[in-house]
Amino acid sequence: MQLNVLSERYATPEINEIFSEIGKNKAERELWVAVMEVQRELGLNIPEEDITAYKSAVNDIDLELIKKIEKTTKHDVKAKIEAFIQAASKKASKQVGQHVHKGMTSRDLTDNVEQMQYRNAANIILGRGVSVLRHMLDNSQSYAEYILTARTHNQPAQPTLLGKRFSMWAEEMLEHLESFEDFIGKYPLRGMKGAVGTQFDQMVLFDGNIRKVEALERKVAEKLGFKNILSSTGQVYPRSLDYAMVNNLAQISSAPANFAQTMKIMAGFGLVNEGFEEGQTGSSAMPYKMNTRSCERIRGFANLIKMYADGASRLSGEQWQEGDVECSVQRRIIMPDSFYTVDGLFETTLTVLKNMHAYEGEIVQELNKFLPFMATTELLQMAVKKGVGREDAHKTIKRCALAESNRMKEEGSSVNNLPQLLASDPLFAGVGITFEDIQKNLQDKLHFVGNAYDQIKYVSDKAAPLLDRYKEAANYEPRQIL
Amino acid sequence: MQLNVLSERYATPEINEIFSEIGKNKAERELWVAVMEVQRELGLNIPEEDITAYKSAVNDIDLELIKKIEKTTKHDVKAKIEAFIQAASKKASKQVGQHVHKGMTSRDLTDNVEQMQYRNAANIILGRGVSVLRHMLDNSQSYAEYILTARTHNQPAQPTLLGKRFSMWAEEMLEHLESFEDFIGKYPLRGMKGAVGTQFDQMVLFDGNIRKVEALERKVAEKLGFKNILSSTGQVYPRSLDYAMVNNLAQISSAPANFAQTMKIMAGFGLVNEGFEEGQTGSSAMPYKMNTRSCERIRGFANLIKMYADGASRLSGEQWQEGDVECSVQRRIIMPDSFYTVDGLFETTLTVLKNMHAYEGEIVQELNKFLPFMATTELLQMAVKKGVGREDAHKTIKRCALAESNRMKEEGSSVNNLPQLLASDPLFAGVGITFEDIQKNLQDKLHFVGNAYDQIKYVSDKAAPLLDRYKEAANYEPRQIL
Amino acid sequence: MQLNVLSERYATPEINEIFSEIGKNKAERELWVAVMEVQRELGLNIPEEDITAYKSAVNDIDLELIKKIEKTTKHDVKAKIEAFIQAASKKASKQVGQHVHKGMTSRDLTDNVEQMQYRNAANIILGRGVSVLRHMLDNSQSYAEYILTARTHNQPAQPTLLGKRFSMWAEEMLEHLESFEDFIGKYPLRGMKGAVGTQFDQMVLFDGNIRKVEALERKVAEKLGFKNILSSTGQVYPRSLDYAMVNNLAQISSAPANFAQTMKIMAGFGLVNEGFEEGQTGSSAMPYKMNTRSCERIRGFANLIKMYADGASRLSGEQWQEGDVECSVQRRIIMPDSFYTVDGLFETTLTVLKNMHAYEGEIVQELNKFLPFMATTELLQMAVKKGVGREDAHKTIKRCALAESNRMKEEGSSVNNLPQLLASDPLFAGVGITFEDIQKNLQDKLHFVGNAYDQIKYVSDKAAPLLDRYKEAANYEPRQIL
Amino acid sequence: MQLNVLSERYATPEINEIFSEIGKNKAERELWVAVMEVQRELGLNIPEEDITAYKSAVNDIDLELIKKIEKTTKHDVKAKIEAFIQAASKKASKQVGQHVHKGMTSRDLTDNVEQMQYRNAANIILGRGVSVLRHMLDNSQSYAEYILTARTHNQPAQPTLLGKRFSMWAEEMLEHLESFEDFIGKYPLRGMKGAVGTQFDQMVLFDGNIRKVEALERKVAEKLGFKNILSSTGQVYPRSLDYAMVNNLAQISSAPANFAQTMKIMAGFGLVNEGFEEGQTGSSAMPYKMNTRSCERIRGFANLIKMYADGASRLSGEQWQEGDVECSVQRRIIMPDSFYTVDGLFETTLTVLKNMHAYEGEIVQELNKFLPFMATTELLQMAVKKGVGREDAHKTIKRCALAESNRMKEEGSSVNNLPQLLASDPLFAGVGITFEDIQKNLQDKLHFVGNAYDQIKYVSDKAAPLLDRYKEAANYEPRQIL
Repeated sequence: MQLNVLSERYATPEINEIFSEIGKNKAERELWVAVMEVQRELGLNIPEEDITAYKSAVNDIDLELIKKIEKTTKHDVKAKIEAFIQAASKKASKQVGQHVHKGMTSRDLTDNVEQMQYRNAANIILGRGVSVLRHMLDNSQSYAEYILTARTHNQPAQPTLLGKRFSMWAEEMLEHLESFEDFIGKYPLRGMKGAVGTQFDQMVLFDGNIRKVEALERKVAEKLGFKNILSSTGQVYPRSLDYAMVNNLAQISSAPANFAQTMKIMAGFGLVNEGFEEGQTGSSAMPYKMNTRSCERIRGFANLIKMYADGASRLSGEQWQEGDVECSVQRRIIMPDSFYTVDGLFETTLTVLKNMHAYEGEIVQELNKFLPFMATTELLQMAVKKGVGREDAHKTIKRCALAESNRMKEEGSSVNNLPQLLASDPLFAGVGITFEDIQKNLQDKLHFVGNAYDQIKYVSDKAAPLLDRYKEAANYEPRQIL
Repeated sequence: MQLNVLSERYATPEINEIFSEIGKNKAERELWVAVMEVQRELGLNIPEEDITAYKSAVNDIDLELIKKIEKTTKHDVKAKIEAFIQAASKKASKQVGQHVHKGMTSRDLTDNVEQMQYRNAANIILGRGVSVLRHMLDNSQSYAEYILTARTHNQPAQPTLLGKRFSMWAEEMLEHLESFEDFIGKYPLRGMKGAVGTQFDQMVLFDGNIRKVEALERKVAEKLGFKNILSSTGQVYPRSLDYAMVNNLAQISSAPANFAQTMKIMAGFGLVNEGFEEGQTGSSAMPYKMNTRSCERIRGFANLIKMYADGASRLSGEQWQEGDVECSVQRRIIMPDSFYTVDGLFETTLTVLKNMHAYEGEIVQELNKFLPFMATTELLQMAVKKGVGREDAHKTIKRCALAESNRMKEEGSSVNNLPQLLASDPLFAGVGITFEDIQKNLQDKLHFVGNAYDQIKYVSDKAAPLLDRYKEAANYEPRQIL
Repeated sequence: MQLNVLSERYATPEINEIFSEIGKNKAERELWVAVMEVQRELGLNIPEEDITAYKSAVNDIDLELIKKIEKTTKHDVKAKIEAFIQAASKKASKQVGQHVHKGMTSRDLTDNVEQMQYRNAANIILGRGVSVLRHMLDNSQSYAEYILTARTHNQPAQPTLLGKRFSMWAEEMLEHLESFEDFIGKYPLRGMKGAVGTQFDQMVLFDGNIRKVEALERKVAEKLGFKNILSSTGQVYPRSLDYAMVNNLAQISSAPANFAQTMKIMAGFGLVNEGFEEGQTGSSAMPYKMNTRSCERIRGFANLIKMYADGASRLSGEQWQEGDVECSVQRRIIMPDSFYTVDGLFETTLTVLKNMHAYEGEIVQELNKFLPFMATTELLQMAVKKGVGREDAHKTIKRCALAESNRMKEEGSSVNNLPQLLASDPLFAGVGITFEDIQKNLQDKLHFVGNAYDQIKYVSDKAAPLLDRYKEAANYEPRQIL
Repeated sequence: MQLNVLSERYATPEINEIFSEIGKNKAERELWVAVMEVQRELGLNIPEEDITAYKSAVNDIDLELIKKIEKTTKHDVKAKIEAFIQAASKKASKQVGQHVHKGMTSRDLTDNVEQMQYRNAANIILGRGVSVLRHMLDNSQSYAEYILTARTHNQPAQPTLLGKRFSMWAEEMLEHLESFEDFIGKYPLRGMKGAVGTQFDQMVLFDGNIRKVEALERKVAEKLGFKNILSSTGQVYPRSLDYAMVNNLAQISSAPANFAQTMKIMAGFGLVNEGFEEGQTGSSAMPYKMNTRSCERIRGFANLIKMYADGASRLSGEQWQEGDVECSVQRRIIMPDSFYTVDGLFETTLTVLKNMHAYEGEIVQELNKFLPFMATTELLQMAVKKGVGREDAHKTIKRCALAESNRMKEEGSSVNNLPQLLASDPLFAGVGITFEDIQKNLQDKLHFVGNAYDQIKYVSDKAAPLLDRYKEAANYEPRQIL
C-alpha cells in the first residue's frame, strides 16, 4: 500500500486535513449533529443534553475503535455511528441515546459530506489563488520599470515591461478566481433526499409531514453554510457539479501555467531565474545550471488538473435513472486528487513568484540587440514624414532588416547595425535621415512600451475588491516546498 | 474537400450563419465600422459620410470578389479591406476614403471578431438551452401523475413519479444555464491591444495620446455589446477563456445526456418511446423496433462536446510570452465545432422531449411487479409497531424478499407473491398482520412517492425567472431533424 | 498524508510490490549490480567478491536507514548508494568498495528503473488479462446453450446465445492482449545514455573507449531482460512510450467495460446477477436488490484508465530539447495509478465472471415475449414462397407487428399475439398460412441463432495459442475483493 | 453549411479522396462487387456478365442521381443500390439483375466500408510517416557535424550534435511507425455478420448452409485485402479498434511534435529558422521576424490528434448488448478528422524538415559562450589527477562557475571568463593547471559529444528495413502548404 503522492509530497496540511480519514469523520459528525439539532427543533424527541454530548465529541475521532467495531458489524456507517455514540457517552459520562443518522439513507450521509469537503477545500484553494494573484500583482509592481523585449512566436516583436507580463497573468487569474468565487457561493447541497430523491425516508420519520422534511433540509443546509439546496435529485446530486468544480480548478490553474511557461523560456535566455535557496544548485554534476524545476513542476500540475477535468467529464451526464455507483471509484480518486494537484500547483507558484530573480543586464542586452528591428515601424513613419513613399520605405526597411538579421545569426553577432545600414541607404540618406536621428529614436526606450505602465495599474485596481474580500488569504505565504 | 458534418447535418441556420464565411466577414465589418466611428469621435479625420457608406455596406459581402483581390494582394486582410472599400464606394456612388483597419494589427481584428462570434453563438445556445429547460418542465407537468418504479443500480428501489425525473433533469439544466448566463454576461473583450498588448500601435495613430487609445477601446466594446474589456493582454486574450467557454457548453449538455441515458433504458423496458413521425419505423427489416436513435445521438453529441472540452484544455495555460499561433488550428476546429455540437444536441433533445410517449400500461405493470419489494420498509414498521423486534422483522422480510425475487427470475414470473409469503409467515401472522393489511398498504401507491409531486413544482418555481428573462427563446421549437 | 486509494483498496500485492518504496529500491539495486557486473567484464577494476556482496544485499532494503543518511547527505541517490554499501558490507562482513553508480547520471538510474518497473507490471497485467480472457471463454462455453434475445438499440432484434456474448467480449480481449504482448516484447530500454544522451559520462569512465560503453549498455539490457535498446535519446526516453503503454492498458480494458455494461443492463431485466457471496445483499434497507456494484466498479475503472490515457497524452510530444522534469510529477501519478487501475479492473472483472448467475426462466420468458417479432423475417419469406408479393407481405407484417407491439406496452402485457394476428389476416390466411404453421417456425428456436454456436468455438480456437503461452497466468483466480 | 476546415486547408488529396462522398460510394461498390463475385462462386445464381457490368461501373458515381432517387425511396442504401444498377445497366447496355446487397444488413455495408476507408487511409498515413522518418534521417546526416549546446531544463548542459537531435526524433518516429505497421497488418474486418452478429441473414440466403456463409466472409475479406476477420461480433465491430487506430495516429505524431517544440525554442535563440519561401516574411509590420508558424501549426495538430484520441476513448468499451448508434455521430467526426489531422501534421512536418535552415554562426557563438561551464566535469578530473581532493575541486569549480554565470547574466555578457577564474584560483594554480591547459581541453570540441556521431548512424541502420519496405512512400515530398 502506497501513500498518495500528491497528498504526501505536494498538498498542504489544510487540504490534507479535509480529505483525511479524520477530516471525513469530523464532517460526518458535523452533519449528524446538525441533523439532530434540527430534528429536535422540529419536534423529534431528542434530548438537548444528548445533542450537547454529541457536539462536544465531534472531534474525538478514534479510527482504531471504528475499525474494531466494523469487524463485528461488517458495516462502516454502523461502526461510525456506534463509535460516535461511545465518544459522546464518554463526554457526557453517561449513555447517550441512539439519535444519530435518523431517517437518513447512506447517500444522505455520503453525498452531503462529500459536498461539505469539496466546498471547504474549494474555499481554501480560492484563498490560495487570491494569494497567487496578490504575488503576481506585487511582481507586476516590482518589475514595472524593466523594459523587456516582448516576443510573439518566440521572436522579438516590440518592447514591453516585465511587470506588464505579471499584470497579464494576474488579470487572467482574476477572471477565473471571480468565477470560482461565484461557483462556490452558489454551490447547492443535495440535502436530505432519501434513497431515490423523493424524501420518502425522512417523511416516514416525520409521520408524513412533508413540510417538516423540507424544513429539516433547509435548516441543516443553513447550519452547514450552504445557501442553496437542490430541489429535485435522484439518489445522488448530478455529477455535472463535480465536473464544474474540477473545471473551475483547471481554469484557475491556467494563469500560473502561462507564467511558468514563459519563465522557462526566459530562464533559457538567461533573463530570469526562478530563485534558489542558499546553497541550492541545479545539479551536482553541473553546478552552474539554474534549472527552472519548480516552473516545470507547475506545468506538470497544470497538465494533471486538466487530466482530472477530463476524468470528471466522464462522470457528467452518465447517470442511469436515480443513480448508481459507477461514479464511485472515479470520484474517490478524481475529487481529492484534483484539490491536491491545484494545492501543490499554487504552493509551487507562490514559491517561484516570491523567490524569482530578474537579470537586468541580460534584459538590457537583449533589448539593445533587437531594438533597431523593433523600431522599424517608427523609422518607416520618419521616412514617410520626410516625403518618402510608404511602399518604398517599407521595401528598403524590409530588405535591410532581413539582411542584418541574417548576418547577425550567420555570424553569431549581437551587434545590430540596422541603424547604420538605413542611414547609409540612399533612400534614407536622400531625405536627410542620419544615424543620429535614428539613434535618438532608439534612445527613448520607454515610449516603445505604449500603455504598458498604466495597464499594470488598471489590473491592480480591478483586483483590489477581491483582495479586499479575502484579506487574510491574500497574505498567505508558501511553505517550504520539496 | 468535405463539408463539416456537424455544421451540415446537425447545426441550425442561426449558428451556421455566425461561423460561415459571410458571417465572419460581417462581424469584421461591424468591428471596423465601430472602430471608425469611435476614431472619428476621438478626432481622427474620417468623414461621417464615408462611415455611413461603410455602415450601409456591412452586409454586402462578395466572397468571390475578395478571393479575386487576394490573388493579387496575397494578403487576406488587405483583400477584405479593399472589398469593403469597393462595397462602400458602390453604396455611396463615389470613392470612399481608406479609413478601414487604421492603427489595427491583425489580432486586433481576428481576436475581437472571434470573440464576437463566440459571444453571439453563446447567446443563441443559451436561448436554446432555455427552451430545453422549458420542455423538461412541461414534461415534468405532463407526467406528474405517472407513478414509476425508481431504480438505483438499474434495480427497482422505491416508487417515484415520471414527472419528477424531468424535474431532476430540469434542475440540473437550470444550474448550468445560470452559470452560462453569468459567464456570457461577464465575457471580456480583448480590445485594441496591438501587436504585443501594449496598445503601442493605436498610440502611434493618436500621436501618443494614450487616454484616447483607452477611450477608443472602451467605446468600441460598448458598441459591440461587451460590458467588460481585458486591461492587460499579450498579442492575444488568454485561451483559458476559450476553455471556460467550451466547459460551459459541456456542462449545459449534461442534463440532456442524463435524460437521454435514462430514456434509452426506459425504452428497453418498454416504458417509453422517443416518438416517431407518422410512418417512421426503427428499421425496414425489423419494423416493430422503436429504436431510441435520437437519444443515442444526444449521447454521441454529449461525448463529442466533452472531447472538445478536452481539446480546449490543451489551449489553456499554453501561451509562450505574448503569444503565437500554436492555438490557431486548434481554435479553428474546436470553437465552431463545439457550438455546432451543442446546437445539434439541443435540437435533438428538444425533438425527443416534444415527441416522446410514455406507455402507462407498462409503467403500471412494472410498478405492480416490484411494489411489494419496495414496500418492505413500511411493512417492517408495521411489524415493529405490532411488537415484533426490528431485527427479527428485518431478517424475515429479507429472507422472504430474496426468495421471492429469486423465484420470479428463475421462473420468469411477473407475479409477486411477497405479500402472501409474509402474511403466511409465523412472525407476521403471529402478530395478526394479514394479507389484506399488506394489500391495503400497497394500494395507496401515491404515498410512496414522498415529496416528488411538490418537488416538481419547486423546480418550476426556481426556473421561472430565467424563463422570464428569455421568454422568446423559451418558446423555441425544434426544426425537423435528420 | 493519505494512502493511495487505488493501491490500497483495489490493486493486488504483486503490482503494489513493484511500485512500493521497497520494490523501487530493489529494482535500483538490480540495475546497479548489473552495471557493476558488466563494468567488471569490460575491464573496470571491480572485485568479484564485492559484486557478490552487493548481489546478496539486493533485497535487504532498510528504508529507515536510507532516510537517516539522506538527512545528512541531502541527496537521495547518495543516501541509497551509501545504504547499499552498508548492506553489502554487512553481508560480506567487511567493507566493500564504492563501485555503485559508476559513470552513471541520475537519469541513467531513474529512467531505466522506471522502465523496469513498467515492464514488470505490464507482464503481470498481461497475465491477468489472459485470465480474464480464459474466464470469458469458460463462460462462453457455460452459457453456450442459453438462447437469448439479442438487442440492438436496447430493443429486441434477433435471437442469439448468451455464450456468444462472452465469445464477443473474449475476442475483443484477445485482439488487444496480443497487441499488448507485442508491445511489451519490443519495449526498448533507454540504456546508459548520460546527461544529454551522448553517453559522454560513461565514455569518460572508459577512457574514451566508446565500443565498451556500447557493450556495457547492451549487456546490462540483456541482464535485465530487455531485447531492445534505444540508440539515440536525450536525457530521457521519449515519453510517447509512456503514452503507448497507458494506451495499451486502456485498450485491454475495453472488453471488460463492454461486458460490465451489458451485465448492468441484463441485471436490470432480471436476466442475470453478478454473483453474491453467502449472506451478501444489495443494501440493508432494500434486501431484495441485487445491485451490480462490481460491474459498476469495472466501468468506473474503465473511465479512470481512459482518463490516465488522456493524462499520458499530455506527456507525449512535449519534450524540450534533451528533456526536463515537466513530466516528472505527471509520471509519478499517471504511471503507477494506471497499473493499479487496470489491476483493480481485472480483479473485479474476474470476480464477476466467476460468480455471476444467469436466470434461465427470465431469459426464456423474454425470448417468448419477443420471438414472434423477431421471426418476422422468416414469416415474410413464408408468405412470399406462397406467392404473396414481397411488398404486400412487408406492409402487413409491419402493420400487425407495430400494432401488437404497441398494444403490449400500452397494456403492460407479456403475451405476444402476433402469430394470431397474422394467421387471421386475410393476406396470410388467403394463402393458407395458419397459426400452427407460424408456431412451428417459432418452436425451432435454435435455428434463429445462426452461426452463434460455432462462433463460440472459433474464438476459443483463436485464443488457444495465447492461453498456451501463458498457462500459469491463465489459471489465475481473483482474490476476495472489497 | 461550412467546409471541413481540416479537410479543406490541410489534408492532401489522397486522404480527402477516401473520405469524400465519391470515395465512400466507390468503397461500397467495391464491397458489393466482391460479395456478388463470391456469392456466385458459392452457387448463387448471379450471371457473370452482370457482375462484369457492375464491376465496370464501380467508379461511375453520380451523386446527383443518388440524391434524386433518395427523395423517392427515402432510404439512402436503396438509392445507392438503384443508382449502381442504373450505372451497371448503362455500361452493359441492358438491364442488369438486382443482385446488389443480397442477404446483407445495413451494418454489413457500413461497418465494413468504414473499415476499408480506415485501412486505406492508414496505409497512406503510414507511408507519409515513413517519408517524415526519411527526412529526419536526411537531416541527421546534414547536421551531423554541427556541434551544438545540448540543453536540459532549457539550460546548457553538455555539447551534442544538431544531427543527433534529428536521430533522436527519427528513432521515436521509427518505434511508433513499426507498431502502426503491425496494427494495420493485423487489422481485422468485421465481415458479414448480419443484424446481431450471428450471420443469420446470410444463412437464410444460403438455405442454412453456414459453411458457405463462412466461406463468403473469408473470400470477400481476401478480395478486399484483409488478412484477419473477427469471428464473433454483435451488430458492430468493437469500437476499441477505432480507439486503437486513433491512438496509433496520436503516437506517430509525437516525434514531429517533439521536433517542432525544439525548433520553436531553437528559433528563439536564433539557431535555426524553419525555412522561408522566396519573398515570404513573418509579418508585414515586422519584416525581420522569422516566425516558426509551421512548427506552431505542427504542435496545434499534435494537440488535436490527442483530442481525437480522447474522443475515441469515449467510443471504446461503451457498447450496449449487440450495439447501437450512440457511437455514430462521434465516429463520423472523429475518424475522418483524425486522419486529416495527422495528414496535415505530416505535410507540415515534411515542409519544415525540407526547408529549415541552421545558423552556424549563432550555434558556434552559443557553444563558445557556455562551453567552459560544460567542460567542468573534465576540469574537475584534471585537478583530481593532479592530486587535488575531489570535494575541494568540486567546491572551487562550483563557486567559480556560479559566480561567472551570475556575472554574465547580470552584465548581459557573452564572454565566459571561467577558464581565467579557475586558472587564477590558488587551488588550480597550486597544482600547475594553467589557462592554456584549460583552453586546450576546450579546443577539442568534438570529444565532448561522446557517441553522438555513431548514434546517428545506428538509427539510420535501424530504420533501413522499414524505408526499404516502403521505398516509394519514403520518397514522398510535401506539396505546397498554406
